[in-house]
Amino acid sequence: MAVVTERPGDGAQPAAAGGRSASPSRSAHQGRPGRPRGLARFVPALGWAPGYPRDRLRGDVTAGLTVAVMLIPQGMAYATLAGMPPVTGLYAAMVGIVAYALLGTSGSLAVGPVAITSLLTVEGLARVVTPGDPAYPAIAALLAMMVGGLLLVLGLARLGVLVNLLSHPVISGFTSAAAIVIALSQVKDLLGVDIGRPDGVVDTVRALAENLGDTSVVTLVVGALAIATLVAGRRYARRWPTALVVVVAGILATWGLSLHERGIAVLRDVPSGLPTPALPEMSTGLLGDLAPVALTIAIVAFAEGISVAKAIARKTRDDVDANQELIATGAANAAAGAFSGFPIAGGFSRTAVNFQAGARTPLASLITAGVLAVAALWLTPLFYYLPKVVLAAIVVVAVLGLVDVRDALETFRLRRSDGATLAVTFLATLLIGVEPGLAIGVVFSLAVFVWRSSNPHATEVGRVVGTTEYRNVDRWPTRTADDVAVLRVDGPLFFANTKRLEDRVQATVADRPDVRAVILDASATTDIDASGAHALHELATDLDAAGIALHLAVVRGPVRDVLARGGYWPELDDRMHPSVGDACQAVAPGSVLCRVADDEPTDVRVL
Amino acid sequence: MAVVTERPGDGAQPAAAGGRSASPSRSAHQGRPGRPRGLARFVPALGWAPGYPRDRLRGDVTAGLTVAVMLIPQGMAYATLAGMPPVTGLYAAMVGIVAYALLGTSGSLAVGPVAITSLLTVEGLARVVTPGDPAYPAIAALLAMMVGGLLLVLGLARLGVLVNLLSHPVISGFTSAAAIVIALSQVKDLLGVDIGRPDGVVDTVRALAENLGDTSVVTLVVGALAIATLVAGRRYARRWPTALVVVVAGILATWGLSLHERGIAVLRDVPSGLPTPALPEMSTGLLGDLAPVALTIAIVAFAEGISVAKAIARKTRDDVDANQELIATGAANAAAGAFSGFPIAGGFSRTAVNFQAGARTPLASLITAGVLAVAALWLTPLFYYLPKVVLAAIVVVAVLGLVDVRDALETFRLRRSDGATLAVTFLATLLIGVEPGLAIGVVFSLAVFVWRSSNPHATEVGRVVGTTEYRNVDRWPTRTADDVAVLRVDGPLFFANTKRLEDRVQATVADRPDVRAVILDASATTDIDASGAHALHELATDLDAAGIALHLAVVRGPVRDVLARGGYWPELDDRMHPSVGDACQAVAPGSVLCRVADDEPTDVRVL
Repeated sequence: MAVVTERPGDGAQPAAAGGRSASPSRSAHQGRPGRPRGLARFVPALGWAPGYPRDRLRGDVTAGLTVAVMLIPQGMAYATLAGMPPVTGLYAAMVGIVAYALLGTSGSLAVGPVAITSLLTVEGLARVVTPGDPAYPAIAALLAMMVGGLLLVLGLARLGVLVNLLSHPVISGFTSAAAIVIALSQVKDLLGVDIGRPDGVVDTVRALAENLGDTSVVTLVVGALAIATLVAGRRYARRWPTALVVVVAGILATWGLSLHERGIAVLRDVPSGLPTPALPEMSTGLLGDLAPVALTIAIVAFAEGISVAKAIARKTRDDVDANQELIATGAANAAAGAFSGFPIAGGFSRTAVNFQAGARTPLASLITAGVLAVAALWLTPLFYYLPKVVLAAIVVVAVLGLVDVRDALETFRLRRSDGATLAVTFLATLLIGVEPGLAIGVVFSLAVFVWRSSNPHATEVGRVVGTTEYRNVDRWPTRTADDVAVLRVDGPLFFANTKRLEDRVQATVADRPDVRAVILDASATTDIDASGAHALHELATDLDAAGIALHLAVVRGPVRDVLARGGYWPELDDRMHPSVGDACQAVAPGSVLCRVADDEPTDVRVL
Repeated sequence: MAVVTERPGDGAQPAAAGGRSASPSRSAHQGRPGRPRGLARFVPALGWAPGYPRDRLRGDVTAGLTVAVMLIPQGMAYATLAGMPPVTGLYAAMVGIVAYALLGTSGSLAVGPVAITSLLTVEGLARVVTPGDPAYPAIAALLAMMVGGLLLVLGLARLGVLVNLLSHPVISGFTSAAAIVIALSQVKDLLGVDIGRPDGVVDTVRALAENLGDTSVVTLVVGALAIATLVAGRRYARRWPTALVVVVAGILATWGLSLHERGIAVLRDVPSGLPTPALPEMSTGLLGDLAPVALTIAIVAFAEGISVAKAIARKTRDDVDANQELIATGAANAAAGAFSGFPIAGGFSRTAVNFQAGARTPLASLITAGVLAVAALWLTPLFYYLPKVVLAAIVVVAVLGLVDVRDALETFRLRRSDGATLAVTFLATLLIGVEPGLAIGVVFSLAVFVWRSSNPHATEVGRVVGTTEYRNVDRWPTRTADDVAVLRVDGPLFFANTKRLEDRVQATVADRPDVRAVILDASATTDIDASGAHALHELATDLDAAGIALHLAVVRGPVRDVLARGGYWPELDDRMHPSVGDACQAVAPGSVLCRVADDEPTDVRVL
């Protein structure tokens, strides 16, 4: 999810595409000649596969192999995080990749298990079934199918816009807190202790502290070495498959030194073979319990995937379509669930590597899936000696980069209300729970928006010296008049802020006894609802009774339409003016407010 | 509640105050010399009582008597509606009036039982206790105290602005539906049938249909006569106390013709005496059950009172202060509850009568309270023969005027989204329930606002022929250029609509291959949040990469501040221009977009 910040992240970074050719102007979503037609609109693979350009083959093959090498250890690690048998991470990735390759609109997006949806899976299922329960894998698979179904429905209903409700501060706060929750959930494996199933962050910390004495020193040392190698690899050898190196070294060391007999937990028998389709058992009660979890995962999975895909599309000129992405991500999850997998998404780091290694069409993903199939068929015996602590180290290093303190500080500096949203989302996700945390963040961000909208910036306006522009008297050198007040309220005039306009007008008129006319500069009055129209009419009536004329200037089209339909004033047309200057000429011709005087400087330049 | 429409209602109407003296300009809420100081700020009665102007005495006395004559039958009728013994209507009014007279800021507001809070009381208590249960009156009194406590807390926290969340369509839809629910609840008394305690509108209609055969013809005739008299009085004799006439006639007819032995239900023994303070029993469980009901009643009671008070204050130049009104309404409810009453509010029709009859200070209200005390002490024996159907007729006639079909049609015509809000609130209130209906309406209206804000009006802008104004190319005759596009998005740029800006810019640039510069006319971009600032920066970066320069014109101060804090562009200052014309001169000097050509007509006048 961290990708939505659109700033250089901590992981591999897509190379900048240079020159004019990367113009976003050519990737607008509608009405362009390049838009696929017919069946290819629904199955984009029919668009690229028949005329596959040979010169892309090398990049796609390299990228496919590179991602597979990353995905084998990550898939197993995230499966463990999700409470699933490690091999299901390979299954979920394999079938999800194939489904996305057929239906997706991004040539570089790498789908598969990702940290946050894995965490949401284990946290969301906790209410229904505990990991380790024989029924757990089937229920997680059912959850993936529900996530897929919801995404398909949203895509067919063309509701991709819903993801816009996730604001930048909500995503940032949520991602940072979820990363901490994930990292904390791995500490028990890094220490090699058993802490049962603690409930929440505070309980986890307490349980870890109580069991600190049981720490397995061998496990701790192997984990520390793995983390050090992964961090060093990330910093100094980005193009190396460090995770694979750590996995191989871990297997060899455990086998050679018999570490599994000295307190290190290993995966032991990992079943081999390809996944087979299976329909999980379901009941309406179970479906009802899982529905809110599925919705949260669906939104998060889509948000993560679409953010990465759009960021890459800005370089590649892929035509990433939000609603088709919903359908593709939905199909990928449904397929993953049908083949004993768990919820997946388009992930940040693997997509970046995929793009960087040269992936330009979904062929790269198909090659990744092929390598995964080989691994699932013939390599699983090698994983017998793979220490669990190595998988934990991979998860911890992957997610700690998602904690973005700098972004939090910048958001606070930029606008404190956004900082508050980030802080609320972060704390709620960390302390109340991952799923309610996201919902609380969204509701809080909407409340902040309504609150700000109900307290719009309102100001008196004057003519900027030497010009015929009208601006805020507090920010510009202006000329004003005693008998005409010009006011501006920045924002839609709607039920929650009509009082603000009334109060502002009344205060202004009270302060200036000579006022005979009030001009409302409506250039920033962007919309008006029925309450606003009523309030404006009432204000005009009251001012008329006081011998003060209310005029409107620069009334935007949509506002004009509503006022016209209201039919409040027969004289409405005479009270609306195309500019503040025209309004001024109508109410106080010749006033210093209306025209530039001979002695004014004309070189004012203030911003 | 219907008063918020501010249009001539169906009931008595405050006379228009003429001339300049009624200027609202002199009643701004802050910083005026007339503002009370010291203790009088908290107990406004200390402001007006000592220097009471003798010339107001006649008006206040007349008004006080008139309202009392209205309030005796109405108070008993609304008490019956609230499921309370009729005399408690007098009690609640009496003590509530005294509390409001000491603390309120309106000289004309008449507090007491009103239809909608009475309905909310009986509906809200239905979950806890049924009317007729001996515990019912004490629990209703407790509810009034909770309503009072909540209002006091809101007032001390200065949260009067919360009432702004009730939009005009929500209030209109809620009021109309509640009026229908109230009227329907009285039909059983008009028919003289016993239908038990039906749950909801549909159930009530069904129960009435089933019991239609038991209709008491005498009751029906008396009720029809009462309704006809009340409607005729409202239409032809507004200054007559028609309700009192109907009550007296009803008592005399019942007594003279022994109608109570022919199937008419009468009040029988009404206890006499003044109310005595009593603390109801309470438990945390009960308080928890009542809390949501109390909050709804508090909001509705305050909204009704403040709307009427402000409407009258526009004529009288009273300084009605929202937060002090919260405190006064809270004290009135707390007092009503402490003296065995039930929730009350400042009502529409009695306030209008009060004002019209000459009430200008709370002395009028104190006289009303005195008359009520006399009635409670010595007149209750007369009420023995008062038919219940007469009280039902008073309620029905009072509320049916609140069903405002014309306002609903006008709202639909004005803006369909507001019409939808009205319809949703109306249907939810009618079919789901009065309390959830209001909450559903508020949430729906906020959702509509967010939805509209996330789809702002966006347009291409050109120079209006013959002027240097820049406007929507679809509405004005404009000149545009091939190499410069000017766009305007009307509304705050925030997380839910950044995509809209991006899509608009991309579509424009895609359509016009020669574009070298995009000018964003930010005159209607009223606010920007962190997501919006990020999106704008990203857009500028993408356009730069495509060799297209993004410039901003008429950036409002608050937006400029956020962008400056973001520190996105070192070149930000060079990209912001005080007007679209200046921006145009910077990117395409001499273009037809920037300056008026010699051959242009200069007499364009389009709105």
